Amino acid sequence: MSAFRVGLLGHGTVGAAFAELLPARASRIEQITGLRPELSGVITRSRGGTFEELLEGSDLIVELMGGIEPARTWLLEAMRAGKHIVTANKQLLSHHGEELWDVAREQGVQLRFEGAVAGVVPVIRVLQESLAGAEVDRVSGIVNGTTNFILTEMARTGSDFATVLGEAQRLGYAEADPTDDVTGRDAAAKMAIIARLAFETPVHIDQVMYEGIEEITPDDLEYARDLSLGLKLIGTAERVGSDALSVRVHPAFLYPGHPLASVNGPFNAVTVESPSITEITMSGPGAGGPQTASAVLGDVISAMIPPASVPPTHESLQISTDVSSAFYLYLEVADEPGVLSAVAAVLGEHGVSVKSVVQKGLIEGAARMVMVVHRVAEARFYEAMAQIAELAPVRARPRAIRVVEEQFG
Amino acid sequence: MSAFRVGLLGHGTVGAAFAELLPARASRIEQITGLRPELSGVITRSRGGTFEELLEGSDLIVELMGGIEPARTWLLEAMRAGKHIVTANKQLLSHHGEELWDVAREQGVQLRFEGAVAGVVPVIRVLQESLAGAEVDRVSGIVNGTTNFILTEMARTGSDFATVLGEAQRLGYAEADPTDDVTGRDAAAKMAIIARLAFETPVHIDQVMYEGIEEITPDDLEYARDLSLGLKLIGTAERVGSDALSVRVHPAFLYPGHPLASVNGPFNAVTVESPSITEITMSGPGAGGPQTASAVLGDVISAMIPPASVPPTHESLQISTDVSSAFYLYLEVADEPGVLSAVAAVLGEHGVSVKSVVQKGLIEGAARMVMVVHRVAEARFYEAMAQIAELAPVRARPRAIRVVEEQFG
Repeated sequence: MSAFRVGLLGHGTVGAAFAELLPARASRIEQITGLRPELSGVITRSRGGTFEELLEGSDLIVELMGGIEPARTWLLEAMRAGKHIVTANKQLLSHHGEELWDVAREQGVQLRFEGAVAGVVPVIRVLQESLAGAEVDRVSGIVNGTTNFILTEMARTGSDFATVLGEAQRLGYAEADPTDDVTGRDAAAKMAIIARLAFETPVHIDQVMYEGIEEITPDDLEYARDLSLGLKLIGTAERVGSDALSVRVHPAFLYPGHPLASVNGPFNAVTVESPSITEITMSGPGAGGPQTASAVLGDVISAMIPPASVPPTHESLQISTDVSSAFYLYLEVADEPGVLSAVAAVLGEHGVSVKSVVQKGLIEGAARMVMVVHRVAEARFYEAMAQIAELAPVRARPRAIRVVEEQFG
Repeated sequence: MSAFRVGLLGHGTVGAAFAELLPARASRIEQITGLRPELSGVITRSRGGTFEELLEGSDLIVELMGGIEPARTWLLEAMRAGKHIVTANKQLLSHHGEELWDVAREQGVQLRFEGAVAGVVPVIRVLQESLAGAEVDRVSGIVNGTTNFILTEMARTGSDFATVLGEAQRLGYAEADPTDDVTGRDAAAKMAIIARLAFETPVHIDQVMYEGIEEITPDDLEYARDLSLGLKLIGTAERVGSDALSVRVHPAFLYPGHPLASVNGPFNAVTVESPSITEITMSGPGAGGPQTASAVLGDVISAMIPPASVPPTHESLQISTDVSSAFYLYLEVADEPGVLSAVAAVLGEHGVSVKSVVQKGLIEGAARMVMVVHRVAEARFYEAMAQIAELAPVRARPRAIRVVEEQFG
């Protein structure tokens, strides 16, 4: 049988796992494809020879080095040389996806990227293939394992964000510099890619609104538990009206029974909603060397057999940030009469309708007031909240978290 | 642009939904594939012209008529004429899958069948493509929506099986003759197909052991609720030792947090476990005309673009029925001293170790005793149970249900 030569760029956690997985599964892959895959070479930014040599001796290039350059230049060069490529690089695709997908189509080569989003959860393949003919209304996802691990541990232990982050770093679930994860930027890059596929409109990471989990407190999670709600960092891409799209990442409470509410620890999960299918949810490990390498291997095998490509964009949807939401509002107020009516008056002036109020224990003479408000345009809610912050009895900056309701749509 | 002619066999719930969906999504499909799909004809067992005419005028045949014949003969004929086929026929594939897959490979045509298992849940594509290179340890699934709906409603309302079945029939979640669903035979056919793909060994439906939900009582579900367990009809396909495979369908309690424990109502879900990926779970509507038609459409689009095939079997695993399990044992006994020790003695003689015992309220002078026993070879447990049934104080036939434990593997 003939060989199929795979050139590898990058040898970090995922790269090293892939370099181990490929020979281990070579016989199996030969049974499926009729070709025996072999590693033609591995190069990193600093060692392993020139890219030109690697390209010359490879039928397909796997890019697991991350970052924009030299990955972008090398992948463009590979495709222009007629080679298929497989990448797990979410930064590159969320910045330069259209350029890469255009060249793949022009050259008639495959560009596969399952490993770039949600690890081994097959969201890219399902969106591109199983649901190719379906009209998607909304995609929601837990697409960052680090933050989901932190929120799960905060809920389990009652510890605060900083403590649990330190623990996550010790356990290897968070990086030394966790900024991209905890701020929501990593999830935003993945949601940009998901939104591009689901809605066929160009989406750049800079168009994705994101908020992180740095300000979540143990109180928020205690509240969630008391009401059997899940508190998760949720990415959403959804059609707004007939010509707009909202792509965003933020913490949100989920009602019990929401398909993402029971996704715990470092797992990822994605729910796709469409009128014809109702909904599909997929979940699994969101990261990890062997897991992501396995997603990459699935792409390599597919590239060894048949063509598949990202179609050109056919719509020009706006990227909207004007969405509405229900909210949880957390206030620390002076323990004196009239506070609730003052807060309620401001909400009422802005058309914000209160669903429930809980006044909780005392912290040094201040009462904690938790309100849940019905769905309202986010801009109006935030105006009201800014005004509430100025009220005399309000002791600390108010905090708000979105609530995903069962009848959200 | 050129047309792509789709010939349809069958016009029941799914067939009619597909005949509506295809023209509605034709423009979208043309964008993706460059070909505009059109229905070249619809024939059923009794009307619509001859199959030969339909075949002549079609590029691809979609079979949604169900049953073995004439579906088998027509699909073989279509493939021998070089046409791709898409089917949702689980009976046909669980009886004659190898014959059909062999012909597809010989002829170099595609045979796609996502709609045959778990509706729109993309388990076939994920097993065949995303996980093509992965070694699978176990696949577990809720693959029958009717029984999951019934169990969910029994848990919610406290009503008995017969009452809830009648309700399910009125709501359209169960057929007039529900035998295949409630006995587990429908799920067994689907598990045969899943096991074939996951383990590459031939699996015929007659090799799948199955038990249904007809004997589940409200007491069982009350017990499950008290212990926060889920009670589901679970299909399992798993490797046993190095050369055997177990494929079975039976009711089982699931620990809280099990990926299938929170799947409720008419939904289906499948979990795939593999050392390199940990696990992936997929869930969604398990049936319904538009949903299954959507899965069929995804297959049609894939067939319009690239080849994919089921590889020949490479192993000859045994189909094992010799598995071990933890059990819940439900006894009605005379309310007198010494009963527990008599029962425990029989269990002990058979090497069955008791994990917990609960003695519950009285029914006409008899006590209800519920025991959970640790994992044990099923044959030994059933021998013990048969002997317990003969004990004088045991008033009714003992009943047993498997318990899926967190450390089951």
